Amino acid sequence: MALLVQKYGGTSVADPDRVRAVADHVARTRRQGHELVVVVSAMGRTTDELIRLANDVSKVLPGRELDMLLTAGERISMALLCMALAELGVPASSFTGSQAGIVTDGTHTRAKIVEIHGDRVRSALAAGRVAVVAGFQGVSTEREVTTLGRGGSDTTAVALAAALGAPSCEIYTDVSGVFSADPRLVPDARRLKQVSFDEMLEIAATGGRVLALRSVEFARRHHVPLHVRSSFTWEPGTWITEEETPVEQAIVTAVTHDTSEAKVTVARVPDEPGIAARLFRGLADRAVNVDMIVQNVSSHGLTDISFTVPRADLDVSLEVSRGMLPAIGAAEVSCDTEVGRVSLIGAGMKSSPGVTAAMFETLSAAGINIEMISTSSIRISCVINVDHVEAAVQLLHTAFELS
Amino acid sequence: MALLVQKYGGTSVADPDRVRAVADHVARTRRQGHELVVVVSAMGRTTDELIRLANDVSKVLPGRELDMLLTAGERISMALLCMALAELGVPASSFTGSQAGIVTDGTHTRAKIVEIHGDRVRSALAAGRVAVVAGFQGVSTEREVTTLGRGGSDTTAVALAAALGAPSCEIYTDVSGVFSADPRLVPDARRLKQVSFDEMLEIAATGGRVLALRSVEFARRHHVPLHVRSSFTWEPGTWITEEETPVEQAIVTAVTHDTSEAKVTVARVPDEPGIAARLFRGLADRAVNVDMIVQNVSSHGLTDISFTVPRADLDVSLEVSRGMLPAIGAAEVSCDTEVGRVSLIGAGMKSSPGVTAAMFETLSAAGINIEMISTSSIRISCVINVDHVEAAVQLLHTAFELS
Repeated sequence: MALLVQKYGGTSVADPDRVRAVADHVARTRRQGHELVVVVSAMGRTTDELIRLANDVSKVLPGRELDMLLTAGERISMALLCMALAELGVPASSFTGSQAGIVTDGTHTRAKIVEIHGDRVRSALAAGRVAVVAGFQGVSTEREVTTLGRGGSDTTAVALAAALGAPSCEIYTDVSGVFSADPRLVPDARRLKQVSFDEMLEIAATGGRVLALRSVEFARRHHVPLHVRSSFTWEPGTWITEEETPVEQAIVTAVTHDTSEAKVTVARVPDEPGIAARLFRGLADRAVNVDMIVQNVSSHGLTDISFTVPRADLDVSLEVSRGMLPAIGAAEVSCDTEVGRVSLIGAGMKSSPGVTAAMFETLSAAGINIEMISTSSIRISCVINVDHVEAAVQLLHTAFELS
Repeated sequence: MALLVQKYGGTSVADPDRVRAVADHVARTRRQGHELVVVVSAMGRTTDELIRLANDVSKVLPGRELDMLLTAGERISMALLCMALAELGVPASSFTGSQAGIVTDGTHTRAKIVEIHGDRVRSALAAGRVAVVAGFQGVSTEREVTTLGRGGSDTTAVALAAALGAPSCEIYTDVSGVFSADPRLVPDARRLKQVSFDEMLEIAATGGRVLALRSVEFARRHHVPLHVRSSFTWEPGTWITEEETPVEQAIVTAVTHDTSEAKVTVARVPDEPGIAARLFRGLADRAVNVDMIVQNVSSHGLTDISFTVPRADLDVSLEVSRGMLPAIGAAEVSCDTEVGRVSLIGAGMKSSPGVTAAMFETLSAAGINIEMISTSSIRISCVINVDHVEAAVQLLHTAFELS
């Protein structure tokens, strides 16, 4: 009897009908002879509604109390799922993050898992019960209730699978897997049967919304294969594993895009050691999440530094950059919110140097100007005007024969 | 600096405005130099909504999971209250029943408190913080989440006050105290400044809805004076203490009424030892909550036994009684759902034998027939036709000069 960890996201348990549908699937999986640990998120938009309620009550939201508030969400969904399982005659017990022994550090609202005890989960399994565990939440070594931040339920599931020695972890969501591009932009985008952890990390980092980056990192580090699939069709989805894409397969696996960032340019910066460090230390101290950074070739000892940040961090980024102009001796700061990023991802790129050129040619032939470029060994990203993002994704998807 | 325990019911924290109003009052109390433990219920009708959600999901509601579900309610209200206090600059920490060390037996949905540790509450107080504690919930000795049943938040507050040695416990609600009769029936009903625990027990048992019976019993046993008052007007309300009502005060303190019961009569029961015991053991085994019991004088070796039960228990009461007819040799079972009970409560009755006669005369003069009578040393209850309850309450309130 193999142990299986299944995780159901908020849309999968959004209302009583959906909770019953999940219970049916859990019961069916169990009849196939599996021991089951089920991790659930809060129902639908519960978390957002609780945050709205908190903002209605107070301008000050202490992290400890925000965590106490938000953990009510999974408490509700997991208890309801156990009730639906009881009606189907499947014995099940729900466990909070604390009861499941998910021990974290004390960083409220974005805690990191440091250890998983799982004694009560193991006891429930040994007693023939389904263990239903609250995603997203844990308990600190100081016995405080914590949450793992957005996407935390995926991390809970992966961490439990690793701790319990499950051979894999199923992530049920409202899409049927990982696609070669966003199907809303590219109708003939293909569902990928398999991608490597490295590719999935790049996909998640460049706009793919299926899995949170952190949970993929966790799965790679702990060697837990993931199966991302739909809780609406119940069809097989996409496997994310350690295996590289076979050599004979396409060089490029997916096109991703992201239109949530803005570009900041600090112009005519003296090209001296330590200047960039001071700028980005200043941004880091204000918790700005800088993504791409590009520095142009120096001319007459001056250079331009451009970087992208989440649009929500733009104001503070401009404030920090402008405040630093005298100290770093730069001329001016400008910004552009009308930008988007398109990326090509593929493990095959490592041994195929022509991909970059082919990408630039495709964009150039359509008259799309490239504003910034950044690459890794399995990814090429270009920042372009946001109005061209949709066309660029479609053109690249066709050019690299991803359909 | 005196320690004070304040409890706020669901209507007191029903929406963001109400939560902020409570935070204001807590901050004000603290500025007066009090150490504060605040017990909160779930917001407004949250508990009822969660139960409705559970019924939408499943026909089977295991007690363990129902408790897990319902405890989400106080988690939300207590975290929000701490946030509102933070905005006012008042340091506060929320504690679940488990974190507050409220240890119960393992009877899910109606657990009994067996012990209170309260170490974390004491630490918070010692650190100069307001401790906000979830009402209604606890943790069993088997580390399972439990709830205390309806009115459980009052019990939490009283139990914490007793365990922490608080000199009294304030119960904030949506009425301004305990009244000489229901103000909806008797517009000139008087708010009582003070009642004894014994009187309050009788008031709670005969229809007064301000406090749950259990919490009053707990307060009496642990010698915790209660102050029931309004969180809408913040005026002083009613003190419930060990002191008897002073002798010079009125003999009767309050008129109460209850129209939630039905009357069952088992006719022509053999008047032999053990017959009544068998009947009420049968009802107890089906968890029927029998209230008043009256047995008429025997005639020709046969007697009639009448009793009242909550209307929700009527069907099962009839089933049990009818099933027992052959075994106990009785003739027939009848029932009456058109009944109500009016009661006079007053510690002064102990030394005033004329009260019963005066009550009967008042009802009789209005042509109201008495169907059942039951008395204690400080209470007289009459079951009458439900259509006469309102008039009976008004007439008795006037006759005993309670305005």
